[in-house]
Amino acid sequence: METSLERIKQTITDLSKFNSSELPGISRFSYSRDDLKARKYLMDICTGLGLAVRVDAVGNIFARYEGSEPELEPVVSGSHIDSVKSGGMFDGIVGSVGALECARVMKENGYIPKRPFEVVFYAEEEGSNFQVPVMGSKILTGKLGIDDLKKMKTLDGETAYDTIKKAGFEPDKIPEDVIPEGRIKAALELHIEQSVRLDLEKHTIGIIEGIAGCQWYRVTFKGKQNHAGATPMHLRQDPMCAASECISKVKDMAKETSPTAVATVGFIEAKPNIPNAIPAEVSFTVDIRDIKNESMDEIAEKLVAEAENAAKANGCTVECECGATSKAIEIRDYMKETMKEEADKLGLDYIFMPSGAVHDSNYMAEITDVGMIFVPSIDGRSHVPEEKTDFEHIKLGADLLLNTILRLTAE
Amino acid sequence: METSLERIKQTITDLSKFNSSELPGISRFSYSRDDLKARKYLMDICTGLGLAVRVDAVGNIFARYEGSEPELEPVVSGSHIDSVKSGGMFDGIVGSVGALECARVMKENGYIPKRPFEVVFYAEEEGSNFQVPVMGSKILTGKLGIDDLKKMKTLDGETAYDTIKKAGFEPDKIPEDVIPEGRIKAALELHIEQSVRLDLEKHTIGIIEGIAGCQWYRVTFKGKQNHAGATPMHLRQDPMCAASECISKVKDMAKETSPTAVATVGFIEAKPNIPNAIPAEVSFTVDIRDIKNESMDEIAEKLVAEAENAAKANGCTVECECGATSKAIEIRDYMKETMKEEADKLGLDYIFMPSGAVHDSNYMAEITDVGMIFVPSIDGRSHVPEEKTDFEHIKLGADLLLNTILRLTAE
Repeated sequence: METSLERIKQTITDLSKFNSSELPGISRFSYSRDDLKARKYLMDICTGLGLAVRVDAVGNIFARYEGSEPELEPVVSGSHIDSVKSGGMFDGIVGSVGALECARVMKENGYIPKRPFEVVFYAEEEGSNFQVPVMGSKILTGKLGIDDLKKMKTLDGETAYDTIKKAGFEPDKIPEDVIPEGRIKAALELHIEQSVRLDLEKHTIGIIEGIAGCQWYRVTFKGKQNHAGATPMHLRQDPMCAASECISKVKDMAKETSPTAVATVGFIEAKPNIPNAIPAEVSFTVDIRDIKNESMDEIAEKLVAEAENAAKANGCTVECECGATSKAIEIRDYMKETMKEEADKLGLDYIFMPSGAVHDSNYMAEITDVGMIFVPSIDGRSHVPEEKTDFEHIKLGADLLLNTILRLTAE
Repeated sequence: METSLERIKQTITDLSKFNSSELPGISRFSYSRDDLKARKYLMDICTGLGLAVRVDAVGNIFARYEGSEPELEPVVSGSHIDSVKSGGMFDGIVGSVGALECARVMKENGYIPKRPFEVVFYAEEEGSNFQVPVMGSKILTGKLGIDDLKKMKTLDGETAYDTIKKAGFEPDKIPEDVIPEGRIKAALELHIEQSVRLDLEKHTIGIIEGIAGCQWYRVTFKGKQNHAGATPMHLRQDPMCAASECISKVKDMAKETSPTAVATVGFIEAKPNIPNAIPAEVSFTVDIRDIKNESMDEIAEKLVAEAENAAKANGCTVECECGATSKAIEIRDYMKETMKEEADKLGLDYIFMPSGAVHDSNYMAEITDVGMIFVPSIDGRSHVPEEKTDFEHIKLGADLLLNTILRLTAE
């Protein structure tokens, strides 16, 4: 069995027409008119295939391809169909259409798996409406509830609860629709990489070996604000010197600790931030990620030690606050092995790689075993109109997804 | 001859009462009601001493103590009497009252110098009205003219020209009042240090060995904005890494080049400045100052070289733009020698030091030889209500000023 390049291309192209804005690229927020049209388009295909379609309290769609042993936990696969404002036509869609294509291939081959297979289209992954990303999968795994929806608001001030209800869903039923741990055999997601590695290193497929957790630190150096001209170097307590010494070492902290770890200083703020004064204070964030929790802890320890050294060397004080953290998510060995074996059989050019961003799979991991497959993003661009992935690569990713589903639904 | 601690203290205290605001500290802008009162107070003292008072087109006051050879170029000394908003009672006032005290001492001793001596009270040094610092001395040295005053505005939108005219001065006469080079023998200024060195190192007097020039650079690293989680370390083009590596070396660039040089990164800006993205761009300013132009050039060369190294090492591009520059001002050897000899005779605890900030003397240097004397600022604080200098130290500074004036007017 093999997926159809033409059908994948056609379906992705069809979906790109459900677009609510005159802006370049795709703007399709969950619960918008065009989102409802895209849902109908997909659900019509699913019912046409004879799948049983269930829509949950907030609009996550499950389309069930029945197995020969319907009492077994299903394998599910899918992704989201919403976009950011002025985003691209591949993010989320590739995994949604890829999973749908697997059902289509099974159907046209008259194949009946042992376990049921469910295609899933997650709602509101991008956080475009309420600035809460991955809302759909958070709700279906019990991480967000009715009370949260009554607090979350659109930029216009409407609550998520009202927005969802107006779109025709039933948020009051959330408690009934939460999926408990163990009810799903595995959840698989095909996704564009949204970064540069596969494209730069010229590989077709990334088999995800772990989903990175995250530790966010805010490091604040305080010194003594003084005149830039009148204060000799040896009498300064300059937090910019301390901060730069610390930041310049962050790169190596990550590199030397783990090959999959990354650490990023994306935000910096100096006070008062004027050219002719030694700053009173400089603070910055450090975003540490790895697929191993111990590595993140080790990098954080190195960060704190370097920050203290840099403070001492410059007569400053330093505070390192740990903000948000999320734990790394392990991908089970059998999942990696299965994907590797199927990729070998297909003769794909793949690498193992970490997933560093947040996807619906991060939350599905709370209730089941997850597996992810990445396909290359040209120039690493995503969340922009120029977002692009070769349809040939999507087809190869969908083939690996299909063969993995066939293996897992057979067990 | 010796200055009077009591009289200095009394005069400084009297002047602190001309204060236009309920804010803490002193707010006395040039051309305000309280500035006009302070001028009258000082001019009354001067006329009481028999000095000939001349007020120029924008309110700079010259009070002439006649010498036995009136045709010789005068020695002038003084400072400014305006303040920043909510500033202190010593900045400018110490040098104004110090110079006035020298005239008082000569008068009470019946001393007639060979050269005339002129006390000067500069107008609008702080830039509080029109955001143009050192306006008074810029005008009297021909660096600003009527057209400039018609463009400069208060925050309320009134032109400097109108403000000055309303206060009773005659800005149209500026061209007649510009003092050409060579018409003044020397201009001396006693001033509070406004920084920490004298206080921290426990010296009473700083003899200024040179007035620092300044070179401002803006360094901009451009890399590639990417997802902080999804971009492996070896594929990044991170301008924050480049910037931190460069900034962390600025301190040593200054220290290793010249003992009087300083270099400061006071301003930094990252774009888009969010914790979970590798920045697209990081830029910062480097404020380089020294009393030797060659040292500033050398530091700038090191900066550009380090910036290029850091860019290369991180796959970024870099641009170093030179913004404002001002040349270092040499203090003539005879001036330093004279002050040193007089300080030794007085048994003062002095050091030679650079002046890093901008004072009226920086502009007077355009038309004459300048000399400056610093007295300690407690904790280095200035431009704040807590600004403080011991009256004993002011008296010692005024004694050194007096003896220097006596030497220079005798030549």
